[in-house]
Amino acid sequence: MKPIGVFDSGVGGLTVVRALCEALPQQPLVYLGDTARVPYGTKSKEVVERYAHTCAQFLLRYDISVLVVACNTASAFAAPALRETLSIPVLDVIAPSARLAAKATRNGRIGVISTESTRESGAYVRALAEVAPAAKVHSAHCALFVPFVEEGLVAHPALRILAAEYLAPLRAQDIDTLILGCTHYPLLRPLLSELCGPSVTLVDCASSVAAEVARLLPAGRTGAPARHRFFCTDAKERFARIGRGFLGMALETVEHVDL
Amino acid sequence: MKPIGVFDSGVGGLTVVRALCEALPQQPLVYLGDTARVPYGTKSKEVVERYAHTCAQFLLRYDISVLVVACNTASAFAAPALRETLSIPVLDVIAPSARLAAKATRNGRIGVISTESTRESGAYVRALAEVAPAAKVHSAHCALFVPFVEEGLVAHPALRILAAEYLAPLRAQDIDTLILGCTHYPLLRPLLSELCGPSVTLVDCASSVAAEVARLLPAGRTGAPARHRFFCTDAKERFARIGRGFLGMALETVEHVDL
Repeated sequence: MKPIGVFDSGVGGLTVVRALCEALPQQPLVYLGDTARVPYGTKSKEVVERYAHTCAQFLLRYDISVLVVACNTASAFAAPALRETLSIPVLDVIAPSARLAAKATRNGRIGVISTESTRESGAYVRALAEVAPAAKVHSAHCALFVPFVEEGLVAHPALRILAAEYLAPLRAQDIDTLILGCTHYPLLRPLLSELCGPSVTLVDCASSVAAEVARLLPAGRTGAPARHRFFCTDAKERFARIGRGFLGMALETVEHVDL
Repeated sequence: MKPIGVFDSGVGGLTVVRALCEALPQQPLVYLGDTARVPYGTKSKEVVERYAHTCAQFLLRYDISVLVVACNTASAFAAPALRETLSIPVLDVIAPSARLAAKATRNGRIGVISTESTRESGAYVRALAEVAPAAKVHSAHCALFVPFVEEGLVAHPALRILAAEYLAPLRAQDIDTLILGCTHYPLLRPLLSELCGPSVTLVDCASSVAAEVARLLPAGRTGAPARHRFFCTDAKERFARIGRGFLGMALETVEHVDL
C-alpha cells in the first residue's frame, strides 16, 4: 500500500495527520516538517514556492500516492504550481475549509483567521467566492498565535488578551462561521470557541481534508494500524516534544533530513 | 574605505548597526538579514552554522574589513568556526556583553535572557566564567519576546504579563545585572527596566560591539556620513517596515538577495 505524503513548515500539519489516522487507520503516511526554514507565514510567495517544491521532491522518493499540503501558507502560495508539475493528486487545506464554511454559514458572514502571508495571498477570499459567492468574508491575521502554540501556551492569560483583540473586528461584523486558516489553530479551539460564543461555528480543515483523501483511495482496507514515518529538517527533539500536542500521541521516532 | 559587514537572522542586528552608525558615522556598512530562514533562535547548531557561513560568504563579496555577527544565536553557535575559516576579524555579540556585565555587577549575580538556542549553547555561561569567574549566572529563555518585537508590540499588556513571568525566577535570585542576550531585546528596554527596577543594570551588546569595532579601525576619519547597503533574503518590504524601529530611522533602500 503506497503511503500518503504530507508536509508542513513544522509541526502544525500534524493536526492533519491526526485526522488522517482517525479516518484511515490502515493507511501509511510519510510526514515532513520543514523545521530548518519554519515559519512560512511571514515569507514571500517565491520563497514558499521554492521550499514547497523541495519538500514535495523529498516525499516523492517514498512513492507516495497523494500529496497533502498541510500548511495554509504553502497551500495558498504553492499548491497550484505543485499541481501543474506533479503527476499525483495534490490536496491543499484551503478549498476544504472554504467548502465546510459555505455549508456551515446561515447569515453569509464568514470570518477567516490566518498568518500574514496567507491573508495577503487572498486565497481564502478566492476559494470562498467560488463556493459561497454571496458571502461576506472578513479576514484577520493573528501573527502571534503560531509562536504561542509552538510554545505550548494554548490557554495563557497573555494569549487570551491577544485573541480577544484579533477577534474583535470579526465579531463586530456579526460572523457566524470562523475558518481557522492555519494548521496550528486547532489547538486553540477551546479558547477561540469560548471567545466567539456558541453562535459561531469554528471550521478547520483537518477532518475535511481527511475525508477528501479517503475518497481518492481504494476502499475496503482492513488490518493492523499502519506504521508512519516522520521527518524534519532540523531540531528533531524539539519537533517530537512539541509535535506530541498536535498529533495527540507520542512521536516515537523522528528522522532528520537535510534539504 | 572598506565597509564593515554585519549579519543577523533578520532585523534584530539593526540595533547593532544603529550603535555602529553613532560610533563611526563615516564608516560604510553592508548589512544582511537572513529573512528567508529567520528565526535562528529555535534551530540547531549545525543548521545555524551552515546559514552563518552562507551569510559570511555573501558579505565577503563586498570586500569587508571586519565581520560582525550581530545575532546572539549565530554568535553562540557559529562565531568560533567563522574565526577559524576567515582571514578578517570576526566579532560576536556575546563576549562584549559578558565584559560589560562583569564590570557592572556589584553583588556578582548576573541574569541572562535569550532565545532557547542561545541558552542551550551555554555561550554566556562560558563567556562570563572567563571574565567574572566568581559570578553566579542565572539564565532564562524568553521564547515569545522575538515575535512580539517583530510585530512592533513592545509595550503590549500581553507582553507585560509574559515578561513578568520570564523575569520572576531571575529577580528571585537577586540579580543586579541583566544581559539582554538577543539583538531584538534592546527594543524592550523600557518595559524590562520598569519590571526590573532601578537596582538592576541592563546590558546590551550594541554599544560595546561598536566600541570594539572602532578600536579595530584606523582613527581620524572625517567627512560626510557614509552610505550603507542593506540586503535581506526575503520579504524586503516587511524588512524595511519592521527594521525602521530597530535602526531608529527609515531604511530607504533594501535589496533582495537569494542565498
